[in-house]
Amino acid sequence: MAIDDTWYTEEWADQGSAISLKIKTKLCDLQSPYQRIEIFETESFGRLMTLDGLVMVTGRDNFIYHEMLTHPALCSHMQPEKVLIIGGGDCGTLKEVLKHEAVKHVDMVELDADVTHAAEEFFPELCSSNHDPRAAIHFEDGIKWVKDADEQRYDVILVDSTDPVGPAAGLFEIEFYRQCFRALTDNGILALQSESPLFHTSLIQAVDDSLGQAGFAKRKLFHFPQCTYPSGWWSATVAAKNGTLSVDLLRRPTLDTRYYSHELYAAAAIPPRFLQS
Amino acid sequence: MAIDDTWYTEEWADQGSAISLKIKTKLCDLQSPYQRIEIFETESFGRLMTLDGLVMVTGRDNFIYHEMLTHPALCSHMQPEKVLIIGGGDCGTLKEVLKHEAVKHVDMVELDADVTHAAEEFFPELCSSNHDPRAAIHFEDGIKWVKDADEQRYDVILVDSTDPVGPAAGLFEIEFYRQCFRALTDNGILALQSESPLFHTSLIQAVDDSLGQAGFAKRKLFHFPQCTYPSGWWSATVAAKNGTLSVDLLRRPTLDTRYYSHELYAAAAIPPRFLQS
Repeated sequence: MAIDDTWYTEEWADQGSAISLKIKTKLCDLQSPYQRIEIFETESFGRLMTLDGLVMVTGRDNFIYHEMLTHPALCSHMQPEKVLIIGGGDCGTLKEVLKHEAVKHVDMVELDADVTHAAEEFFPELCSSNHDPRAAIHFEDGIKWVKDADEQRYDVILVDSTDPVGPAAGLFEIEFYRQCFRALTDNGILALQSESPLFHTSLIQAVDDSLGQAGFAKRKLFHFPQCTYPSGWWSATVAAKNGTLSVDLLRRPTLDTRYYSHELYAAAAIPPRFLQS
Repeated sequence: MAIDDTWYTEEWADQGSAISLKIKTKLCDLQSPYQRIEIFETESFGRLMTLDGLVMVTGRDNFIYHEMLTHPALCSHMQPEKVLIIGGGDCGTLKEVLKHEAVKHVDMVELDADVTHAAEEFFPELCSSNHDPRAAIHFEDGIKWVKDADEQRYDVILVDSTDPVGPAAGLFEIEFYRQCFRALTDNGILALQSESPLFHTSLIQAVDDSLGQAGFAKRKLFHFPQCTYPSGWWSATVAAKNGTLSVDLLRRPTLDTRYYSHELYAAAAIPPRFLQS
């Protein structure tokens, strides 16, 4: 077989590996002020959105990522009323957050309006909660938003970012974590996508260290399969401002999910042995 | 970028997707009586062995698969003295089994001697226990071996097979499971690789049903990341002859592992919600 131009390919350059998805048609190709946005109809993964050639979301497997970034964090908080999402332009995280009845208000702060507009057109299933009266979508710089936010404004902050290069690099820096710490209530929870346990082991450790230095006494890595992200294995790091983060304190709301369950909360937080500290 | 002939590519044909590994050199290409065996030096995954063009093992990530096929099964048995491995020609499973001091004898029954000889030459780290006095390697048909085995001969049987096509198809049939049941002691444990939770959901359910019909009252699916197998997410199904299979009954020997831990035993057995029955 040959991987020709009927395939979309993402090369994981520093890892000598690549994934390819068979394409039926290209639905959209636009250059936003920030990045190139392409949307494809694939043969077996539903629709695919790429940003500058990197997979952002597929219709088939995005549920795992969105659920695992959202629910461990929100269930770690007893009363998550005010939530901030940084990034998350495809709106899948927003949809998961709004499944929590406890939530009264969500600010979603996405840099690139064109990503969200493309999601609304081509991934309507991810955007079905965009008009929920609890949701406010802002097209602004998330780093600046957090810096400008009042102290203790949010119960939970979710960082649904792209990889730590380009505009998203600042989302992996200690100064950003310090601002998140400041903007969180005393029992506040921060969660961020933290790349692949197999490919980015040292990044995961560096994020954990930086969160500790920023004041988050307790951090947990949640890991999960994610077929179309590098290595097929991904993680979210959840950090608690007041130092408690325990399955014994888990809030267990009824949630309509396909991957996450409250039993999986504890399970996904057991690290592979090579990541045990 | 182009995926050209400096890459090895495995297409997951019915799933419209493919993985590619960047190749430095090809070390071996031979046609055995059963299959084409190729070995490559890759850029980032160590050495790669393929059988008829499908990834069997890479130096980088095989530890997860081998540990997760072996240790949940062997730790589910209080005294696993006599072990049978069906397949497992690369010897990685044999090496994991022999980490258990309780084990007194292992029969490894691999159809294709050339696979094992290639592993001995190119994956010496997987074959480091091949000369353990407790190990006996037989190049024979595993299905016939089990059929001919005395009743209650083995405490644990591990089926380390290729996909359910060609010579390995019989390893996914109820008649084979019945013979395994017969060849196991009363407290016996059977474990088999059972493909991808994302791609092969119906196969996983069919295997579980067949094991039940063959007499195994209790089965558990253990799932884990496996970067270079289809979807990057894989599973082993463990079945108990006498119906007990519980973390409360877990044997907890000291094991030198990189992925598996006794905490992960329970964690890996929590299914994603879409697989909950």
